[in-house]
Amino acid sequence: MYAEIGKAIKERNKSAIQKCALEQIKAGADALDINCGPASKKPIEDMPWLVEIVQEVTDKPLALDSSKPQVIEAGLKAAKNKLIINSTTADPEKIDILVPLAKQYNTKLIGLTISAKGIPQNKDQRLELAATIVAACSEHGFPIENLYLDPIVLPVNVAQAQMKDILDSINEFKIISEPSPKSIVGLSNVSQGTSVRSLINRTFLVMAAASGLDAAILDPLDKELVDALISAELILNKQIYCDSYLEAYRKK
Amino acid sequence: MYAEIGKAIKERNKSAIQKCALEQIKAGADALDINCGPASKKPIEDMPWLVEIVQEVTDKPLALDSSKPQVIEAGLKAAKNKLIINSTTADPEKIDILVPLAKQYNTKLIGLTISAKGIPQNKDQRLELAATIVAACSEHGFPIENLYLDPIVLPVNVAQAQMKDILDSINEFKIISEPSPKSIVGLSNVSQGTSVRSLINRTFLVMAAASGLDAAILDPLDKELVDALISAELILNKQIYCDSYLEAYRKK
Repeated sequence: MYAEIGKAIKERNKSAIQKCALEQIKAGADALDINCGPASKKPIEDMPWLVEIVQEVTDKPLALDSSKPQVIEAGLKAAKNKLIINSTTADPEKIDILVPLAKQYNTKLIGLTISAKGIPQNKDQRLELAATIVAACSEHGFPIENLYLDPIVLPVNVAQAQMKDILDSINEFKIISEPSPKSIVGLSNVSQGTSVRSLINRTFLVMAAASGLDAAILDPLDKELVDALISAELILNKQIYCDSYLEAYRKK
Repeated sequence: MYAEIGKAIKERNKSAIQKCALEQIKAGADALDINCGPASKKPIEDMPWLVEIVQEVTDKPLALDSSKPQVIEAGLKAAKNKLIINSTTADPEKIDILVPLAKQYNTKLIGLTISAKGIPQNKDQRLELAATIVAACSEHGFPIENLYLDPIVLPVNVAQAQMKDILDSINEFKIISEPSPKSIVGLSNVSQGTSVRSLINRTFLVMAAASGLDAAILDPLDKELVDALISAELILNKQIYCDSYLEAYRKK
């Protein structure tokens, strides 16, 4: 799918991208991630083009996904839908550009608990990086309830001992400040390189939901994953039980 | 299946029951629940007969499952395998018979956080009943690490608001005493009366595992349930990752 989208961007194949966006919405996506892909030679032009053509077919929120602040800014300027900036790290050079932009454009902001020093190795490092991002948001007057902290999900086959720390971080992000920041994960990372990706994805997602996860970047076309998520929300009393709760959720 | 077993008990159809026991073991059961069923007219004779014929085909631990202490005692006398008493409540008339029996026969003991006053309505009531059982075990010199506390899992369609309390109880049982008591659930209750039983069972089980659950009474023939449990244990670092971890677990 990624390779196809990359080709469609390069060839300015609008309908292929719009079709993909509509499929994800039909499957239940609450927001769409907009990413120019690693092969993009001119992301500063690709990002606003993507934003514009996706906005032609939906008014769902868009997550502008780039590691380059200037690419995100190009997307912000082109957008009229609600927005999520995906993402800042805990590094000052990112925070000091992206947090003011998030405030100016009234967007939500994803904050990755990672810095130029590297990937966090345990829960304490995640909470420390989270506190850095929360403090910077407060300084810039950005509303903390619009901040989504990402604990950096690592593949279970390389960082098995950190999975519990990641889950506990999701829980403890809530007590960093009042009002609480929210939490998000990039789900598919947990199963990277494993042989039963969907099973591991949905098992981790159910655990993260029980730990208080607020949002996830995931594949809404994975029916078993979405069934598991809906059932988790049911058990956590986030939607009212009815016999046909799976269908009821999807109709919402 | 229950009706068939009831019939087999009544007709003393040994091979039907032994076949069922072997199927559960093949599917990965660590222990077998021995219950005479609601239709049994003479459980004091049925229980030791069941124990004896199941012991002919396996040396797996047996959980003697009855609400009547004298039926459990009849099973204890007939047994040579390792045993679990299933179960005492928090009522003195149960505790004062079953805890000394559990100590005398060196069995594990399941303690339900329920009493003659009724089903617990929240986490605090569960913890209070759990503390009563733990205190009684201590008084009788029964080793707390052999006690499995059951938070009483209620159906999600009638007690949706209690699900989080049940999960939190599992977590908090651990801090009632040192050494910690263990935890167990009768899983299938969570989905009683719902239309997607297996999905709700496995979603709840994954959450309970993340809350520190030590054991569950469940259907080992439900492959998706067992896959979810194995994956939960993988994520919780309770077994080492390998690409074929599902097969590796089942071969153990």
